[in-house]
Amino acid sequence: MAMAEKAVVLLSGGMDSAVVLASMQRDGFECHALSFDYGQRHRIELECAREIATHAGVVEHVIQAIDLRAFGASALTAEIPVPKQGGVGQAPAVPGVIPVTYVPARNMLFLSCALALAEARGARDIGIGVNAVDYSGYPDCRPEFIRAFEQTANLATKAGIESLRGPWFRVHTPLIDLTKAQIIRLGRSLGVNFDATISCYDPSPSGLACGECDACRWRAIGFAQASD
Amino acid sequence: MAMAEKAVVLLSGGMDSAVVLASMQRDGFECHALSFDYGQRHRIELECAREIATHAGVVEHVIQAIDLRAFGASALTAEIPVPKQGGVGQAPAVPGVIPVTYVPARNMLFLSCALALAEARGARDIGIGVNAVDYSGYPDCRPEFIRAFEQTANLATKAGIESLRGPWFRVHTPLIDLTKAQIIRLGRSLGVNFDATISCYDPSPSGLACGECDACRWRAIGFAQASD
Repeated sequence: MAMAEKAVVLLSGGMDSAVVLASMQRDGFECHALSFDYGQRHRIELECAREIATHAGVVEHVIQAIDLRAFGASALTAEIPVPKQGGVGQAPAVPGVIPVTYVPARNMLFLSCALALAEARGARDIGIGVNAVDYSGYPDCRPEFIRAFEQTANLATKAGIESLRGPWFRVHTPLIDLTKAQIIRLGRSLGVNFDATISCYDPSPSGLACGECDACRWRAIGFAQASD
Repeated sequence: MAMAEKAVVLLSGGMDSAVVLASMQRDGFECHALSFDYGQRHRIELECAREIATHAGVVEHVIQAIDLRAFGASALTAEIPVPKQGGVGQAPAVPGVIPVTYVPARNMLFLSCALALAEARGARDIGIGVNAVDYSGYPDCRPEFIRAFEQTANLATKAGIESLRGPWFRVHTPLIDLTKAQIIRLGRSLGVNFDATISCYDPSPSGLACGECDACRWRAIGFAQASD
C-alpha cells in the first residue's frame, strides 16, 4: 500500500476550514494544520483551531506568529469598528463592495506560508476554505486568485521547478462552490463538531460571538438553511 | 508638482537590496523599507538593514517577525551546515543545482508581506533585489516568478481588482539583469555605503563575514571585477 500523501491545511478556527480539514482527511491525506496568530481581534479562534486540530488528530499543528497589526488597514487588525449592519437573517454587506474586514493580501500571505511549510515537509497539496458563494466579496476568495497562486507557487519553489510530471503544488478548495448550508451538511456528514468552531469577527473577551457581524450572520443563515 | 509616489522596498541588509532602495529613491519614490526577522542565522543583517534604512531616510522601516525555523529545511533556518566549497574567486555552487541555502518559498512569502504593507499604505510599487545573473540558482530570483507574482498580486487584492487603469501593483527588479560588478558600480554612483551591508550566510557571532560561503564569494568576485 502506498504511503499516505501529506497535505498542509490552513485552519482558522472557523467552520469552513474545519470542514476542509475533515474533507482532506477523508480523501486520505496526512494533514499538517497551519494557523496564524496575526494579531486578529478575534483571538478566540486560535483556541478553537487548537481544539479542532487535536480532535482531528493532525500530524502537527503549526501556529505561525505574524503581526499584521504592523500593517493595519483592516477592521480585523486595526482600531476600525467591525460593521454590524443588522439582525440575523439579512443579507450581509453590500454587493460589489469589499468590506473593511478585508485584510490586505491576507490569503496571499497565508497561502505563501502554507507553501513554505508544504515544501519543507515534502507535501504537495494545500487545503484552504475559501468560498465564492456566500462570502463577503474578498478578492482572495475567488477561483481566479487561487489558480494564479498555484501557478506562481510552481515557479517560486525548488519542488515546483524540479517537477518533471507537470505542476507540483496543488491548492484544494473543496468549499469554493458550496453555499454555507451545503458546507454545514458536508461537515456534518464528515463528523465535524461545529460547536468547537467560531465565525465571529468581533467576539467578547470571553469568546462569545456578537451575532451581528457579517460572519455571524452568514453562519446563522447557513445553519437555518441546513436544517430546512 | 505631483505628490511623490510611495513604494515598499524589501531590505535585507545585503548589498543588493541597499542598491535597490537607492535606485528607487533616485526614481522619486517615497520608500517604506520592510525587513524580516525570520530566525536567520545571519542576524547581523538586521542591524545592517537598520543602518541602511536610517541613512537612506526612509519614511518608515517595518521589521516583521516571522519564524521560518518553525518550517526549517534550509541551511539558513535549520541546523544544516552552510556549504563552503572553496576559496574566494572560485565559481560558487554547482550549475543547475539549487543549494541548501535555499529557503522554501522565501521570496513568495516576503513579497506577499510587501504586498500587504503596500496595499495598507496606498503604495503601488514594490522593489526587490533579485538577480538572475550572478546568483545561486534560487527559483524565486527568476523573472518568470516575478511576473507571475505580479499577476497574482493583482488578483489577490482590493486595490488590484478595483484598478480601472490596468494592473495596479508593480514589482521592480532593477538588478535582475546586472552582474555583481554592475550592481556595485550602480550602487557607488548612487552613493550606497557598502561598508554598512553584509552578504555572508554564516557570519561569526560578532558579525564578521566567513569569506567562504557562496554569498561571500559572489561579493568578493563582484568587488574585484568592479575595480577592473
